Amino acid sequence: MSFARPVPVALIGLGGVGRAVLAQLLSPPLAARFNLVLIANSRLSLSLPLPAAAITPVNYLPILEKHGVPLDVPSIVSVLSRHPDAPGILIDATGSDTVPSLYPQILGMGVHVVTPNKKAFSGEETLYRSIQDASYPNAAALVYGESTVGAGLPILSTLRDLVGTGDEVEKIEGVFSGTLSYIFNEYSKPEGGDVKFSQVIKIAKDLGYTEPDPRDDLSGTDVARKLTILARLVPSSPSLPQGYASVPTQSLVPPILADAQTKEDYLSRLGEGDAYFDQLRSEAANEGMVVRYVGVVDLKEGKVEAKLGKYPKDHAFATALKGSDNIISFHTKRYSPRPLVIQGSGAGADVTAMGVTSDMIKIHERLRTVRP
Amino acid sequence: MSFARPVPVALIGLGGVGRAVLAQLLSPPLAARFNLVLIANSRLSLSLPLPAAAITPVNYLPILEKHGVPLDVPSIVSVLSRHPDAPGILIDATGSDTVPSLYPQILGMGVHVVTPNKKAFSGEETLYRSIQDASYPNAAALVYGESTVGAGLPILSTLRDLVGTGDEVEKIEGVFSGTLSYIFNEYSKPEGGDVKFSQVIKIAKDLGYTEPDPRDDLSGTDVARKLTILARLVPSSPSLPQGYASVPTQSLVPPILADAQTKEDYLSRLGEGDAYFDQLRSEAANEGMVVRYVGVVDLKEGKVEAKLGKYPKDHAFATALKGSDNIISFHTKRYSPRPLVIQGSGAGADVTAMGVTSDMIKIHERLRTVRP
Repeated sequence: MSFARPVPVALIGLGGVGRAVLAQLLSPPLAARFNLVLIANSRLSLSLPLPAAAITPVNYLPILEKHGVPLDVPSIVSVLSRHPDAPGILIDATGSDTVPSLYPQILGMGVHVVTPNKKAFSGEETLYRSIQDASYPNAAALVYGESTVGAGLPILSTLRDLVGTGDEVEKIEGVFSGTLSYIFNEYSKPEGGDVKFSQVIKIAKDLGYTEPDPRDDLSGTDVARKLTILARLVPSSPSLPQGYASVPTQSLVPPILADAQTKEDYLSRLGEGDAYFDQLRSEAANEGMVVRYVGVVDLKEGKVEAKLGKYPKDHAFATALKGSDNIISFHTKRYSPRPLVIQGSGAGADVTAMGVTSDMIKIHERLRTVRP
Repeated sequence: MSFARPVPVALIGLGGVGRAVLAQLLSPPLAARFNLVLIANSRLSLSLPLPAAAITPVNYLPILEKHGVPLDVPSIVSVLSRHPDAPGILIDATGSDTVPSLYPQILGMGVHVVTPNKKAFSGEETLYRSIQDASYPNAAALVYGESTVGAGLPILSTLRDLVGTGDEVEKIEGVFSGTLSYIFNEYSKPEGGDVKFSQVIKIAKDLGYTEPDPRDDLSGTDVARKLTILARLVPSSPSLPQGYASVPTQSLVPPILADAQTKEDYLSRLGEGDAYFDQLRSEAANEGMVVRYVGVVDLKEGKVEAKLGKYPKDHAFATALKGSDNIISFHTKRYSPRPLVIQGSGAGADVTAMGVTSDMIKIHERLRTVRP
């Protein structure tokens, strides 16, 4: 039957998420749906299958190094668009800015795009619009980015269902950063505690929960990007012409550390910021509250914001949240007075890859199901 | 463009959910995707549009009564299968057993089925298998029943994504009945209380949260049906040859009331059961626990069960749950040690209808998106 034909796929980007996507794609049941025709890292690409070697998630790197040719994204897209089982899917598992800038052309060639890369959807409105114009429902090519918010959690698909079926979204509120979730769950507990903010940052960094320079998490930019992606799915949202840069975003680098030039300088002086955070925490505790770093898309107020917020000690953001979990609440006309809430691990290679491969299954179903 | 063609739809069943589906289908943006060609209740069906009258969620009933013809499901299916924009979708919003028994034939005629009716998926394995054999991926027709579990909450779609991308489901645990959620949230609070079980039942009945005979909720059958639907999506689940009837299910009608013959007899004697429930509650309270009626699909133990359970006072089932919310936890290899949790209203006409219409959007996308 025609819907059993595998869909040709090229995977660009072989960092943590890319390798986890590779592992999922090579495992049954996904290997039956998808024909992996090319893998690439930031320098080299390799057409598959090679005559003498089957690629596995373990052996791919030396084979790529030995047989790879310099990466050339347009020629990869060209291969996918002319494959006998075309149209194919390009997986952009890079963190690059340049691949997303090519999405409109890629989609225009009839090649579908699946990506965990937030850049295209959270940047300038002009690029975002070009991508929308080049994809369904305006054109036949599909672009999916479920894992850009909440990794494998069904956040964007749920928001699309709410909007698509005519619900009125009033507010989306949540803890969107696994790193900042961990930091504040440890720093500001409902039962109290006197751990220093600098200690928590150091532990989080040692556990690999932060970027090499923790300021990349503490800037709030990642949260602002996710809010931009969510807001753009709700027609009544305020416009964000510069994308995440248009979102008011509170930085967690305290004023006293703002002049740290290097990562090393910042890390060595971390303790200087403790007084700043201790004051925030004790102010909240005096009101029976905890401190959390949240993102809010408030359609009634017309505001999109990434900021520190205080929540009562019995609020789900205080009690239900553990480790590096994300939690997202959708307050809508139908889900009222209590919101629809989704919670769970919102970061990590395996769950992010799951968001990518579940998008691919949806594309496979749309390409291969039904021929009336 | 071809994907803009509306999909012909027939809606059978005009109770609370059916009327809410009607309202959603007649509203933009859904009216652009779907061409409602027929509505029917349990007796009469009406082809649309009528020459002189536009159907609305308000005026449909007198028009149906005046112009309707006796309901004949096979002829409706025949119309959908031969429509110029076929294949069409049959929405079974009935609570009937007979319409689900026809799904294999309906699907075999190329007509898609969307339903909030649990009967087909939670009954005998033989019917369930016939439906699977007659639908995708074995055939081109699609059958969707997202709203059979958790109404508009993304429960089944999330479980499909977990299984489809190769995660290993270890346990699904949750409060699946809005009615029983309300009853136990009121009866057994983390902070204690001495309200009588019979009082809570009476209030729930007066609020319209229970069936006319509350024993229909208290039997646990609705939970057992939902567990059957979930379990059948996980390949490693124990087989349930008789469907919900194969699920060990604890009844909440206490032994002393088991001999009540009529609803009236049962309701008048409700207070006789209070001692039974008071004992359960005080046993739990002595251990720092609350009582909840939960459903469990335990893949490690190979068990599917609907039962009363005790949960610590700081467990999400005790603290996060309010009103008639459902809460469902997916414990998997990837979502470990903390589960993926989805919570929100799991009953009510509007959110159940949303589950139906979001399924329809997915079918529309699969029928109309891409023509390589």
